[in-house]
Amino acid sequence: MTIPSDIEIAQAATLRPITEIAERLGIPADEIVPYGHHKAKLALPAARRYSSAPKGKLILITAISPTPAGEGKTTTTVGLVDGLNRIGRHAMACLREPSMGPVFGMKGGAAGGGYAQVVPMEDINLHFTGDFAALTQAHNLLAALIDNHLHHGNSLGLEPRSLSWHRVLDLNDRALRGVVVGLGGVPNGVPRESGFDITVASELMAILCLSESIADLKRRIGDIVIGRNHAKALVRVRDLGAEGAIAVVLRDALLPNLVQTIEGSPAFVHGGPFANIAHGCSSVIATKTALGLADYVVTEAGFGADLGAEKFFDIKCRMAGLQPRATVVVATVRALKYHGGMDKTDLATENLDALRLGMSNIGRHLDNLTEVFGQGVVVALNRFPGDTDAEIALVKRLLAERGTTAIEATHFAHGGAGTMELAEAVVALADEEPEELGHPYELASPLVDKVNAVAKKLYRAGTVSYTAAARKQVHDLQHDGFGHLPICVAKTQYSFSTDANLRGAPEGHELQVREVRLAAGAGFVVVICGAIMTMPGLPSHPSAFGIDLDDDGVISGLS
Amino acid sequence: MTIPSDIEIAQAATLRPITEIAERLGIPADEIVPYGHHKAKLALPAARRYSSAPKGKLILITAISPTPAGEGKTTTTVGLVDGLNRIGRHAMACLREPSMGPVFGMKGGAAGGGYAQVVPMEDINLHFTGDFAALTQAHNLLAALIDNHLHHGNSLGLEPRSLSWHRVLDLNDRALRGVVVGLGGVPNGVPRESGFDITVASELMAILCLSESIADLKRRIGDIVIGRNHAKALVRVRDLGAEGAIAVVLRDALLPNLVQTIEGSPAFVHGGPFANIAHGCSSVIATKTALGLADYVVTEAGFGADLGAEKFFDIKCRMAGLQPRATVVVATVRALKYHGGMDKTDLATENLDALRLGMSNIGRHLDNLTEVFGQGVVVALNRFPGDTDAEIALVKRLLAERGTTAIEATHFAHGGAGTMELAEAVVALADEEPEELGHPYELASPLVDKVNAVAKKLYRAGTVSYTAAARKQVHDLQHDGFGHLPICVAKTQYSFSTDANLRGAPEGHELQVREVRLAAGAGFVVVICGAIMTMPGLPSHPSAFGIDLDDDGVISGLS
Repeated sequence: MTIPSDIEIAQAATLRPITEIAERLGIPADEIVPYGHHKAKLALPAARRYSSAPKGKLILITAISPTPAGEGKTTTTVGLVDGLNRIGRHAMACLREPSMGPVFGMKGGAAGGGYAQVVPMEDINLHFTGDFAALTQAHNLLAALIDNHLHHGNSLGLEPRSLSWHRVLDLNDRALRGVVVGLGGVPNGVPRESGFDITVASELMAILCLSESIADLKRRIGDIVIGRNHAKALVRVRDLGAEGAIAVVLRDALLPNLVQTIEGSPAFVHGGPFANIAHGCSSVIATKTALGLADYVVTEAGFGADLGAEKFFDIKCRMAGLQPRATVVVATVRALKYHGGMDKTDLATENLDALRLGMSNIGRHLDNLTEVFGQGVVVALNRFPGDTDAEIALVKRLLAERGTTAIEATHFAHGGAGTMELAEAVVALADEEPEELGHPYELASPLVDKVNAVAKKLYRAGTVSYTAAARKQVHDLQHDGFGHLPICVAKTQYSFSTDANLRGAPEGHELQVREVRLAAGAGFVVVICGAIMTMPGLPSHPSAFGIDLDDDGVISGLS
Repeated sequence: MTIPSDIEIAQAATLRPITEIAERLGIPADEIVPYGHHKAKLALPAARRYSSAPKGKLILITAISPTPAGEGKTTTTVGLVDGLNRIGRHAMACLREPSMGPVFGMKGGAAGGGYAQVVPMEDINLHFTGDFAALTQAHNLLAALIDNHLHHGNSLGLEPRSLSWHRVLDLNDRALRGVVVGLGGVPNGVPRESGFDITVASELMAILCLSESIADLKRRIGDIVIGRNHAKALVRVRDLGAEGAIAVVLRDALLPNLVQTIEGSPAFVHGGPFANIAHGCSSVIATKTALGLADYVVTEAGFGADLGAEKFFDIKCRMAGLQPRATVVVATVRALKYHGGMDKTDLATENLDALRLGMSNIGRHLDNLTEVFGQGVVVALNRFPGDTDAEIALVKRLLAERGTTAIEATHFAHGGAGTMELAEAVVALADEEPEELGHPYELASPLVDKVNAVAKKLYRAGTVSYTAAARKQVHDLQHDGFGHLPICVAKTQYSFSTDANLRGAPEGHELQVREVRLAAGAGFVVVICGAIMTMPGLPSHPSAFGIDLDDDGVISGLS
């Protein structure tokens, strides 16, 4: 069977009016704000009402450590929701919004794939409802106000070299990583070094995704630390007085976006913070609203379970008081073989030995999820056409030996029909009496103890080391009263260690902390281990050159 | 009588569903794309169909040379449409979209004022339907592709110092006027000097406003000249191959936005190019679509008639084949007194002598409109509360002596009820057999002759001078085959001359051309006379600090 391209499947789908999707959730037409006929935001009063009365069960989709083979968290999230609805449950998805910039680089879209997509995929992958544009504008408004403050006398006494607030664009643009601004003489501001990040790396994105109301949004914006003054005291956005205007720019972006899957299941697609320097989950407001609307809410976290699920549990769930009822770990035979040492060009070949070795990666994630976080887990084996029956059987047997159910899912090729067995297993798990959500550390512990706990309990590192700068930063933050915040570790997603080449389940390695940053508005401390890129570049042949528009407005070349 | 603030009036207005506004124009619900309940874009097939069957009469609103006293072109456009509908005509407005950046500086909104506003004013002044965000993204995508081309081997042989494509943001941010990008070593691109303009200054904005179809849009984008190669040949976007992706980003932005006035009249608010380095009118596609929907279409051009109306006639109307049927010149007693030499702090005082002197400014504009462009004109005297009856009578008498009708309009205080007499006069004028649209120059004339014609026939300059650089630029452009393009003069809007302090109707002055730029995609040559700012700055107390959002999402502090 040949499966058409994602955009072909999406363009061939018959979409229901978004008012109909809303009505089936019990939302009347006047409680949604349409963006075209197939996208809508919930109006503020509706989001408030539904999010305050959660009734559904929350299910997390996470994965093994990512590999070049691809795992399929987003497709599994979409496919599972379709499967749940097919077996008669009322389910909806909560997904992250794709970033538009990388679409013109080499990354495909991020609205699922095959027959497990949210639609309209072109809109979702491009401007969607304008949330990222609003974040870009809000972020850069703050930057302009800061530089304007320097220009007009600097009454707050800002130390220009301490200013950490960059500018952002939703683009891959390496030439903006390091810039000098303010050139051209007195009328053009104060010259200083600065830079641009991609919009999803903005602290405002993390804030938007953790805020539960406009008041919460404004408080968090006010809390943002932009730098220090000449007396070395922290300066916040509140000191500048800009939180009201920034909140105005983000007013509509705060509200969840409703779309549908190809099979007509409802989905909120809202917010998309990085999963390294931020917590990597869709918005709290969307999750809580979905829990007020559906019986089963399926959501995904970024990267593998060591990064995405950890932050989902330790940051998002803890802050928002959410209790997940089941966790699905997505794996593929190809990815497991890669973790077992195979070269990425050989993955189509059956190799039971490599597969057996690669099981160490999923084993570690499963241990963490059950032992540290107390989650009931099921493995979704996202089956690719080339996977052999022997390989599938081996994975199932090895997982069964450790007491974990693994279920094949073929949603990419079959949509919800390919996840009905998975759906039954998830329902059974979610309907059990839940164990209380566990955490690797208490919020009251000092920051260095938190880093130790995550490094040793989850990554199985032997030691944690700090650069001199990072040691001072963590000490200063503890001293300045931020010791109670959760931590957000930024490290490579490809390994439990900080070395992307260490596949499988390395242990005894050293976690090297290079830098520690405060995200006082979002409410966490970012612990940076290794080089983290916050502004991607374009490849030598960007996909932009294959993207086109015909005279009737039909887009081609998006993948 | 005290008139409430613009935002108070707008928030107190009862808005009709946008589907109802569309239906009254004969547009069925499935031909519009809603953005919320009170904004919509026309779908592409509908825009195509209506714009290809124009039936209405086009009326231009222009003004005397702007003064600090304010004239009120936008309010007059809105008020006149309301007045036309009140006297039983089917009329709609075509307005420019406001830029969001200046809203946070010191400029008020640009959605009209008083009882002559388009609504929802907060949306229109902020993100609206995302057009400016799309332009920002499209513009910066091209910039990223250019820098990426330099980074990956520069196979086109671009000369970095010749690259004229800046980046843009829809913000007032002086620190971005002059920047160095590409810092930080080899992975971060090629260091070079560049800068940012405000989004409305993008050539893509001018292109969007002159394009009549997707094919036209793509052709124009491909035509953009980004710089020269090492052999000094011009390099276009088409050589890079980026026009398809850029058109994809602008797909929805190309379609007209439908909103309503406070009185429920329909209005397209679409596109907003600068009126100095660009042609300063709302989009051709909106104008033509409106002419297919309404009997009278009222539109405005930027700044005074020397800049805005000239470009409307010589660029927009000539390119799009539009034949305006009447021109309304907006003036106020206060502004005329300012042109007569009064200080701006004294304008509330009756001063018939200053008023008589200031009539020279409107006289010059009226002469130009009738003699050069062959327009039938009527003057709208936008009455302010402090204007005395003697002042109004004097203006009317002096204009009558030269054969021009002047009619008081009080739309700011009274909405359409304040423009019914004006509406009757406009209808009478528009229903006359039209004179053919005249122009100060033929397209076939050389560029220097075009500059001479505009300078002498319209500005009444005595001489035209060029800097050495500008002389070379105009010669090169003529030589490179761009001599057939219309010109777009960028000079101060405050005077017929290039000296903002020369009020009234100066003559015999020198027009100094400082720089000549090519806008090959838009299809004109920009002739820059004096210093033109394409990235505004924020004042020492930006209005951002007075803008706020309450817990229910209600915005305050916009004006």
